[in-house]
Amino acid sequence: MAEVKVDESRWQILYKQAPEPMVTEDCFEISSYPADSIKALEDGQVLVKVTHISVDPYMRGRMNKTSYGQVWNIGQPCTGGLAGVVVESKSNDFAVGDKVTGFGPWRAQIAAPAQYFKKLPDQSLSPSLFLGGLGMPGNSAYLPFKKFSKIKAGDVVFVSGAAGAVGSIFGQLAKNAGATVYGSAGSDDKITLLKELGFDDATNYKKESPADGLDRMLGGKKIDCYFDNVGGETLDAVFPRMNLHGRIICCGMISQYNLKAEDKYGLKNVSHIVSSRLSLNGFIVSDWASEMEQATTDLIELVAAGKLRPVETIVEGYQNIPKTFVALFQGENKGKMVVKVADS
Amino acid sequence: MAEVKVDESRWQILYKQAPEPMVTEDCFEISSYPADSIKALEDGQVLVKVTHISVDPYMRGRMNKTSYGQVWNIGQPCTGGLAGVVVESKSNDFAVGDKVTGFGPWRAQIAAPAQYFKKLPDQSLSPSLFLGGLGMPGNSAYLPFKKFSKIKAGDVVFVSGAAGAVGSIFGQLAKNAGATVYGSAGSDDKITLLKELGFDDATNYKKESPADGLDRMLGGKKIDCYFDNVGGETLDAVFPRMNLHGRIICCGMISQYNLKAEDKYGLKNVSHIVSSRLSLNGFIVSDWASEMEQATTDLIELVAAGKLRPVETIVEGYQNIPKTFVALFQGENKGKMVVKVADS
Repeated sequence: MAEVKVDESRWQILYKQAPEPMVTEDCFEISSYPADSIKALEDGQVLVKVTHISVDPYMRGRMNKTSYGQVWNIGQPCTGGLAGVVVESKSNDFAVGDKVTGFGPWRAQIAAPAQYFKKLPDQSLSPSLFLGGLGMPGNSAYLPFKKFSKIKAGDVVFVSGAAGAVGSIFGQLAKNAGATVYGSAGSDDKITLLKELGFDDATNYKKESPADGLDRMLGGKKIDCYFDNVGGETLDAVFPRMNLHGRIICCGMISQYNLKAEDKYGLKNVSHIVSSRLSLNGFIVSDWASEMEQATTDLIELVAAGKLRPVETIVEGYQNIPKTFVALFQGENKGKMVVKVADS
Repeated sequence: MAEVKVDESRWQILYKQAPEPMVTEDCFEISSYPADSIKALEDGQVLVKVTHISVDPYMRGRMNKTSYGQVWNIGQPCTGGLAGVVVESKSNDFAVGDKVTGFGPWRAQIAAPAQYFKKLPDQSLSPSLFLGGLGMPGNSAYLPFKKFSKIKAGDVVFVSGAAGAVGSIFGQLAKNAGATVYGSAGSDDKITLLKELGFDDATNYKKESPADGLDRMLGGKKIDCYFDNVGGETLDAVFPRMNLHGRIICCGMISQYNLKAEDKYGLKNVSHIVSSRLSLNGFIVSDWASEMEQATTDLIELVAAGKLRPVETIVEGYQNIPKTFVALFQGENKGKMVVKVADS
């Protein structure tokens, strides 16, 4: 990663170069934005001091030139979900000291129209939760759970990336619904965590193959619903182990994001989609923007009732944002990975 | 294929040996069943002279030992859809001369309880149609079209195996709904047929790759609904060419049925399921048995109104059943492949 002299009060993280295809710290540059880039606020604007930066696997897609959706532009700041505190307000909707979330550039402060931000619905909770289990990742579990999973008591559910921000929520929702829930993750610590969260069993894919892990856990049962965060070999091992009319929810395929086209895993067991009458549904949670507020309300209630435990990995310091983003793809997070860059 | 002296009035086709994995005529044996295997009818039974035998791609699955569904047993007659005429009746529901369809063994005559058979809803139409466009294959296009396709005027639809029994019906239904419809098939004759049926364009996958064929036909447009009969390379080429929220209906994957596990095509473009928010739905039409009668009624109306043309390839003679079944996997059929074994 390029070393540039940084004014700590005006730090920013730029997208410097595209991964080839493995994401590394060299893809980023930490620098300072010019002091005069933040002008006097206009009516309706707020100045937000950023306190928490969300790093998410979906951002790997922003590093590609894709035909859909937003991309990160080389030489421009990375963008994503963040939390902050209002330090100056020319909006009737926000007072100084309000904790907010928003979507914006990775930098120390952001001046923007007030509607770019949303007040935390509960100012007493940690803002990081609204980037995790009570925010986009939580909604990415909750909404497809409601829309696609059809999970009922007695169902067998499998979640890959189960110790991640989304998988850990989905698994707990499935347990709440009375399902038997299995998970996969990449370390023994994570397996322990999953059992603490109520998963019935879990497999460390670095110690046993997805097929072996599934056979051991399932003991001959079939999977009614698979929540896929990883794709690749795990998804291929799932197909023949799905029950008739089983549902596969495609949330992400993180095992494939940093691979060259020729190295991507080739799925061979897809004929089970026909023979077992499976459904697969891919989704991106922002398609359901209008439903997120209610979803967050529901998730807050579940947490308050002790029925849902959002898991977080908090790293401190803006200097660590690039390293923390890279670590996501090395599976170093438990639950939601957030970088705390300032106090609220 | 074993040559055995056959009494032509008592022919039967046995499943002799499993394919390894390519299906050949050696998988079958033509023989005679014993004269005394058809006993005097009991009350409620009918004796049916078989007139038409349906050969279908799904039967390839019956040759495997799968965990779900029916299989063909070595040394026993093959089974499947057939049409016939009642030659003796001890049922109040059937008179001699009634044309019927049913599901049963591949043999000259079948004595069975009357409820095993269904009278053709229109005795003036060719019984073969009720094994094709007005029967199981027609329903396999009509019901998923209604349940999964969400096709509306202006949509772009792609059908593989488009000149087959199911694909040719699906494509016409999509055209009736106002979609732009493209197809793929394996001969120039079939491409000509597809254009006669109203397809906007079609590609011969033996002359251009699925990716090239799609790019040429689409001219930059994206696919809203893909009806997949072939799987493999074609399905993989479709993923990146799907529109946001596109629907893939998995009817069959005939390109993969006769391949060893290690030779099966590995799908690499599946991450588009997430990024383009795709749905995939596999189905087996027999899951919707209760809806088939209405579907057939609807299909008969479409044919009568000149809005649907069922295409058939009729081969004559029971001796040709094994050869005709094998020919299915070599793409030698246009529309529904049926073997006529006797006059009605």
